[in-house]
Amino acid sequence: MYKIGIDLGGTNIAAAVVGFDNKIVAKESVPTGLPKTPDEIADSIAALVRSVASKAFVRMDEISVVGIGTPGAVNAEGVVENDANLGFVNTPLREMLEERLGLVCRVGNDANCAALGEQIAGCGKGTRNFIAVTLGTGVGGGIILGGKLLTGVNGAAGEIGHMVIDREGIPCKCGRIGCFEQYASATALVNVAKEAFPDITGAKDVFDLAHADNLRALEIIDDYTEYLADGITNLINIFQPEMICIGGGVAAQGEFILKPLREKVEKKRYTKNASVQTVIRAATLGNDAGLIGAANL
Amino acid sequence: MYKIGIDLGGTNIAAAVVGFDNKIVAKESVPTGLPKTPDEIADSIAALVRSVASKAFVRMDEISVVGIGTPGAVNAEGVVENDANLGFVNTPLREMLEERLGLVCRVGNDANCAALGEQIAGCGKGTRNFIAVTLGTGVGGGIILGGKLLTGVNGAAGEIGHMVIDREGIPCKCGRIGCFEQYASATALVNVAKEAFPDITGAKDVFDLAHADNLRALEIIDDYTEYLADGITNLINIFQPEMICIGGGVAAQGEFILKPLREKVEKKRYTKNASVQTVIRAATLGNDAGLIGAANL
Repeated sequence: MYKIGIDLGGTNIAAAVVGFDNKIVAKESVPTGLPKTPDEIADSIAALVRSVASKAFVRMDEISVVGIGTPGAVNAEGVVENDANLGFVNTPLREMLEERLGLVCRVGNDANCAALGEQIAGCGKGTRNFIAVTLGTGVGGGIILGGKLLTGVNGAAGEIGHMVIDREGIPCKCGRIGCFEQYASATALVNVAKEAFPDITGAKDVFDLAHADNLRALEIIDDYTEYLADGITNLINIFQPEMICIGGGVAAQGEFILKPLREKVEKKRYTKNASVQTVIRAATLGNDAGLIGAANL
Repeated sequence: MYKIGIDLGGTNIAAAVVGFDNKIVAKESVPTGLPKTPDEIADSIAALVRSVASKAFVRMDEISVVGIGTPGAVNAEGVVENDANLGFVNTPLREMLEERLGLVCRVGNDANCAALGEQIAGCGKGTRNFIAVTLGTGVGGGIILGGKLLTGVNGAAGEIGHMVIDREGIPCKCGRIGCFEQYASATALVNVAKEAFPDITGAKDVFDLAHADNLRALEIIDDYTEYLADGITNLINIFQPEMICIGGGVAAQGEFILKPLREKVEKKRYTKNASVQTVIRAATLGNDAGLIGAANL
């Protein structure tokens, strides 16, 4: 039997056929093509499921489950409570897809799916208490405890980007001041760096300057890892997980980011002397994490 | 069968015989009498167990388990890794008490025990995902997910008082700047209030002034609940638990604190529109929470 994982985004819908060993057998993606109604989005997903299955030479009766990772908070019934971008308002996505496909479907939050994928098949393989932190446009999170996703009472748990770390600091679009994502997202890094380097277009440019030993760029990245360490240390003091995995574009810098991050966390964490400590690693699956995680919801 | 719960503190050791219904049948306490060696502390606990059992007319063979709540991080083997005050360094407290009592013993962190007690028999009865926040000298925490205490990889999870909320703010003795407990503990409230009212001796004095409509005291408490709301909202955004329970001396103020706290959290939380939200309540068991929780470790 095979599983299918879907990563539903505002730009693209990606699908993967996933084998019993959590290896991806085939992948396919289509533009989301917004604006669309929720019914049209469900139609696109259903068509993509059939198409990717056929690409993998897998029959529909060989598919045990279809898992969908979507933006927004998803409740236990697979209803997406709210997502402005996709136009979901209490949208019963699970039911809509089960009707179209005649298969068991599950729906979860996309950041949670990415965390689950890394924990099952990526850098967190073998761990049971695992937090994924994704540094991108914002800061996303997924928390796995005892091998299970923490979804919370309303499906919206894991919003670690909206943990205030500097209450006199930068306003966040969530309405609060000083949220972690205002400092630790790739966007935040670029915003700071643009003051010194108006021509940069993305976080990679800042790192390229730093790799060329530009002192201002090195300083900016030093500050950035300090902020990052503050949020990560908060999570360690609260959860003491086995592992925290850092994903997103910034994490592609690997040890260039992780080494200073670990050194700063070591100085900050409450359990400086504990014999067992949280391990900090880079995510390894990239975009596949969300697909593998969705398939395993 | 009965359970025995122990609350080991720097000043007193308290013990309770707890019935199958989680009601306390008898209580007793003795001064800890520091300085003492870990062996002498274990002797005192063992003597207190026998004494409180006899007070309740319970024979030793009617006791199914003895649970001990202690300061410090406790690992899965019941070893207390470190507590400066009690002089514990990798102290195998569980083993030391099993030898002395010939009974099954369990050891857990005291703040975690208090959380477990409230969840089992106090304001959190019936919940499975529950966070207790204790506002006292510091800010303690206990996190229960799926009905189980979150202890983390090294027994030290739940240090929510050491979540930085204001990284340009007040230094904390943990070495970081702007920890939640520097703003939300009773100590923090008193420190701020002393600038306006040098004669006050405790948090209750600030509340007494506020109840007498002293405007400055009301302002100070308004600021205090704002800080408190920041930390509590962080926890909600991360966990979305069914309930957060506020304990400690400050919580004795009940709705006077909880009403503004709830109003502020409502404006701050990320899930402003979710149909299900975290409930915020006051702890109901006081010091009994730690005893009942320890008995149920």
